[in-house]
Amino acid sequence: MIIVQKFGGTSVGTVERIKNVARRCLATQRQGHKVAVIVSAMSGETNRLLGLAQQMHVEPDERELDVIASTGEQVSVGLLALAIHAEGGKAVSLLGHQIRVLTDSAFARARIRDVEGQAIEEAFAQNKIAVIAGFQGVDDAGNITTLGRGGSDTSAVAVAAALKADVCEIYTDVDGVYTADPNVVPNARKVDRISYEEMLELASLGAKVLQIRSVEFGMKYAVPIHVRSSFNDNEGTWVVPEEKAMEAVLVSGVTATKDESKITMVGISDATGIHSKVFRPLADAGVGVDTIVQALSAEGRTDLTFTVSKGDSKRARDLLVKHCSDFCPPDHIRTVENLSKVSIVGVGMRSHAGVALKMFEALAKENIYIHLISTSEIKISCVIDGKYSELAVRALHDAFELGS
Amino acid sequence: MIIVQKFGGTSVGTVERIKNVARRCLATQRQGHKVAVIVSAMSGETNRLLGLAQQMHVEPDERELDVIASTGEQVSVGLLALAIHAEGGKAVSLLGHQIRVLTDSAFARARIRDVEGQAIEEAFAQNKIAVIAGFQGVDDAGNITTLGRGGSDTSAVAVAAALKADVCEIYTDVDGVYTADPNVVPNARKVDRISYEEMLELASLGAKVLQIRSVEFGMKYAVPIHVRSSFNDNEGTWVVPEEKAMEAVLVSGVTATKDESKITMVGISDATGIHSKVFRPLADAGVGVDTIVQALSAEGRTDLTFTVSKGDSKRARDLLVKHCSDFCPPDHIRTVENLSKVSIVGVGMRSHAGVALKMFEALAKENIYIHLISTSEIKISCVIDGKYSELAVRALHDAFELGS
Repeated sequence: MIIVQKFGGTSVGTVERIKNVARRCLATQRQGHKVAVIVSAMSGETNRLLGLAQQMHVEPDERELDVIASTGEQVSVGLLALAIHAEGGKAVSLLGHQIRVLTDSAFARARIRDVEGQAIEEAFAQNKIAVIAGFQGVDDAGNITTLGRGGSDTSAVAVAAALKADVCEIYTDVDGVYTADPNVVPNARKVDRISYEEMLELASLGAKVLQIRSVEFGMKYAVPIHVRSSFNDNEGTWVVPEEKAMEAVLVSGVTATKDESKITMVGISDATGIHSKVFRPLADAGVGVDTIVQALSAEGRTDLTFTVSKGDSKRARDLLVKHCSDFCPPDHIRTVENLSKVSIVGVGMRSHAGVALKMFEALAKENIYIHLISTSEIKISCVIDGKYSELAVRALHDAFELGS
Repeated sequence: MIIVQKFGGTSVGTVERIKNVARRCLATQRQGHKVAVIVSAMSGETNRLLGLAQQMHVEPDERELDVIASTGEQVSVGLLALAIHAEGGKAVSLLGHQIRVLTDSAFARARIRDVEGQAIEEAFAQNKIAVIAGFQGVDDAGNITTLGRGGSDTSAVAVAAALKADVCEIYTDVDGVYTADPNVVPNARKVDRISYEEMLELASLGAKVLQIRSVEFGMKYAVPIHVRSSFNDNEGTWVVPEEKAMEAVLVSGVTATKDESKITMVGISDATGIHSKVFRPLADAGVGVDTIVQALSAEGRTDLTFTVSKGDSKRARDLLVKHCSDFCPPDHIRTVENLSKVSIVGVGMRSHAGVALKMFEALAKENIYIHLISTSEIKISCVIDGKYSELAVRALHDAFELGS
């Protein structure tokens, strides 16, 4: 089999841990597999490098930032290759421009266009473990690029796709994906298999196990992703194409984000073009808007509601007062702080009626007021008061019988 | 003009110093020149990286060492480019594989085969300062290579040769090349112009201003090298092709190395093949042999004398006892420790008789015993007792009237 393994910054954070990773890769190779291993920079290193850059320039050029930041992974791959040698194995380090991981030229947030796997195949042909620098690529002009924070997951899945690998193993400090945060729900259960779509909803909702872009990449190229612990040999969670069996499970997981603020513009005109007047100033100022909900009213008036993160709410309100006063006086702009978005995710809900009702009832039973509801095909989210966040997660977890 | 500037690890050792380098490059550019600047890793960084590698493997693979070590310069060029931006200038960093600095595949001690200057020319066309990573190159297969310690001087001269630069400025912590070590000879004089050949002899004899290989490169491609201080704007020393005027100067400089040991094998056979029996075991054990002197005697017996560094002398003797006892009994191997090699260098001595005599007389006048004499076309070296080293340098400096 061709197995791609990815280890994050914590897993290669010290000399001792790098040696552990080396032993793990070698053990896999000795089972008869071809192994490519993707590593991040040693934990703390990327921040140290970016700190140096900040001392040079308050707004550092992103091309140069990438030149500097990419050295973190470069050191990691060299060290891991040496560690594998020390364990008696064969290994060669490969950088983004050596593989080559071709990206666009959007420095600091480049997107992968193509991965040429030839150098990796050559390593395999020589019985070597290919030790690959995550997070980095090269553009058409030969400039070094980086994929943005957490880009190593994406590197790993992209390499796995290029190699048509049998699995892309993402090693992390948890055992896999859980039905809910085990810190909140003690009987949360590890999910054995989950679809890319569900994982995407969970990832974007705050489950920090996998980078969103890596899941998108995995879905596009049907790469089986295995999220598992770097501390043991247990099976983790497989992220795979949707399967018939998954539909039998109504809900795969419950998740929550915190520190959201809700802004409602009450009784504004529902005329065409009003949305651009509201959201253009926010976008220009870099205010990220999450959920947007609007219910049309009968008399040409409507309430427009959306959420922003807590840190942006004051600024968002100021911008709306400044730019929207012609159709929405300041006292019609209502802000509610300290909210939480609680969501249930599952491909099963597509073919089952009554899932939303069950969610609302579970929340009502705990007297939790719902500020906002928003749904997608495989997700239902309710915005509630932040103080009830954990209670809501536990209630939903119980209601959908997710516990072990 | 096209000006290449090289700054070593000390000159880019802190954020503040990098900013100083940025200002210096920009000042040169603002005089209307095209500027390429080569930098080393921040001082201490290369040792930190190699230390990490050593923790992974006692004998680390040199390909991987180069991957790791080359990140030091990569960080420097990114930071310097940012510093130039911060001063309002335009700059772009360029790595060995981007330029491209093509080398052989002798990792950790690669030799430059060719420098493609296109990326630098493009930077010039956009009015940018080209900020180039020293010490590193790339081989035909795309592997990262390094040129060995001090390789940044060589990078600078090679880039200057490729660009047909008007000058390659090597910035250092001294004002230039001196007729002798100013710590030993208070009235030592800065040399204004010196030939590549003289500089080579001085460099190999311990004047630490310029890497030997960079001088060889400069000589091969006739690159004018200007060694000057990074602390002021004074003219330093120009290292240039030999000029007629230089021959008028008998001796350009006096230099000394310390901690040498002399080994004499007394009365051995002068048969063919004897040298290989002596020097093969030393070479295999990594013992560096410096001066070798042999005077043939009449009766088929000869004395073979050579010097090794102090740290190697005991080992060298043990090896000779072990491997050469069939033609040289142990009591015929004589070792003298704590010696110094004092040398005078100058192209002028080629066309002047009596230079050696003058040297011997100057040493005799101070009652300094000469253990060994060795000469080249533009150099005469005498091995003397180490305790007289400074005295000899001063005496020779006076005898050849080198003082200011």
